[in-house]
Amino acid sequence: MTAQGTLYGVGVGPGDPQLLTLKACEVISTADVLAYPVNGSGESQARATASPVIPEGANELPIHVPIKIERGPARDAYDEAAKGISDHLSAGRNVAYLCAGDPLFYGSFMYLAVRLGEAHEIEVVPGVTSLSACDARTLAPLAGRNDIFSIVPAPLPEDALKSALAGADAAAIIKLGRHFNKVRDVLRALGLVERTIVLQSVTGEDERVIALEDAAEDDAPYFSTILVRRGELT
Amino acid sequence: MTAQGTLYGVGVGPGDPQLLTLKACEVISTADVLAYPVNGSGESQARATASPVIPEGANELPIHVPIKIERGPARDAYDEAAKGISDHLSAGRNVAYLCAGDPLFYGSFMYLAVRLGEAHEIEVVPGVTSLSACDARTLAPLAGRNDIFSIVPAPLPEDALKSALAGADAAAIIKLGRHFNKVRDVLRALGLVERTIVLQSVTGEDERVIALEDAAEDDAPYFSTILVRRGELT
Repeated sequence: MTAQGTLYGVGVGPGDPQLLTLKACEVISTADVLAYPVNGSGESQARATASPVIPEGANELPIHVPIKIERGPARDAYDEAAKGISDHLSAGRNVAYLCAGDPLFYGSFMYLAVRLGEAHEIEVVPGVTSLSACDARTLAPLAGRNDIFSIVPAPLPEDALKSALAGADAAAIIKLGRHFNKVRDVLRALGLVERTIVLQSVTGEDERVIALEDAAEDDAPYFSTILVRRGELT
Repeated sequence: MTAQGTLYGVGVGPGDPQLLTLKACEVISTADVLAYPVNGSGESQARATASPVIPEGANELPIHVPIKIERGPARDAYDEAAKGISDHLSAGRNVAYLCAGDPLFYGSFMYLAVRLGEAHEIEVVPGVTSLSACDARTLAPLAGRNDIFSIVPAPLPEDALKSALAGADAAAIIKLGRHFNKVRDVLRALGLVERTIVLQSVTGEDERVIALEDAAEDDAPYFSTILVRRGELT
């Protein structure tokens, strides 16, 4: 009987390959199979970030994951991906699944962990989140002292956004995309526009950091983040 | 005229040296001066984490920082630390200030950045937070989909804790220490005790992960974290 392989969920960080951890480098360079999510255009941010440490001739398993929330297609995609990964693990091959940021922080790895956790050994290598990259870029602390800091997904209804932001000292609004106008309206209503910055592709090649009022709706990609603070930390 | 040095705020991650980033290793091994916070017993978690990459004979600057919130003594300590660092920077020496976790996420680096940011160049190297290490350890996603995830400091008054936790789908309660009983009462009142785990020193040598009801009050060190989730992510 062949020993089973291990599935590694590897956080590769926000985009700069220099923000890979030593552990991530080790797992990526020694895994038998490298899996990673790819978008509709066949691009993979996670693979691009890890590319300097991916060995030549690596056995790669790109996984097409629909970014939309429609449950059916996404479920099918994860079911199929889990099957492909499971076959490798059962044959004794270690599989590293590369994740942008941290694998279990709003990442897709949880969908694989849920499907594969009972039958297979899983290990997670935590990574630097894009939020930490945002605070490093602006030199503005995300949170400190006894701040309540909330991470608020932009697809939520306006009322939920408003009450979440009203209850926090500081917040990051994620998954912005087509919800930009709604979010800006909520921030205006709360009087927080001037305390707000929009960050895009932080540490990536097309990084941008702009004030909320300077950002145009059709200009905010899905992976933009908005940071808001109520007061100063001194 | 001597060129000024740069102050680097370097996140060294949650405790496992393998979770240092490549960038952190580079900055630590090439800086002219290594500064780091030390507690009352002269111990430094940040230095211990970074120790495998600290060069022999490095010029070290331990900084005694009171952990208590009394403003006067802490302010004086940071004023004095900033002065010592500033002298090095003005003499053209690069200084790396080692921070557990991420430098600007509930970290002490912000107090130095505020004091030194106008006169000196500052660069932040983001790190893996202890929260990401917690999720990796439990294999339970901190947050996913459209969850509101809140980070809630335990020293807050009971009412503030209750309302912050009531408004979140998932939460991390940090800075636990002597506030353990109060936090447990709040979680009981909200019916969340069974959905709660307590993590201590994750990735460190004395790591422990326990159910809330199994944790004793005098047993929860300052750096424990509680994770709570309302529902399952599937």
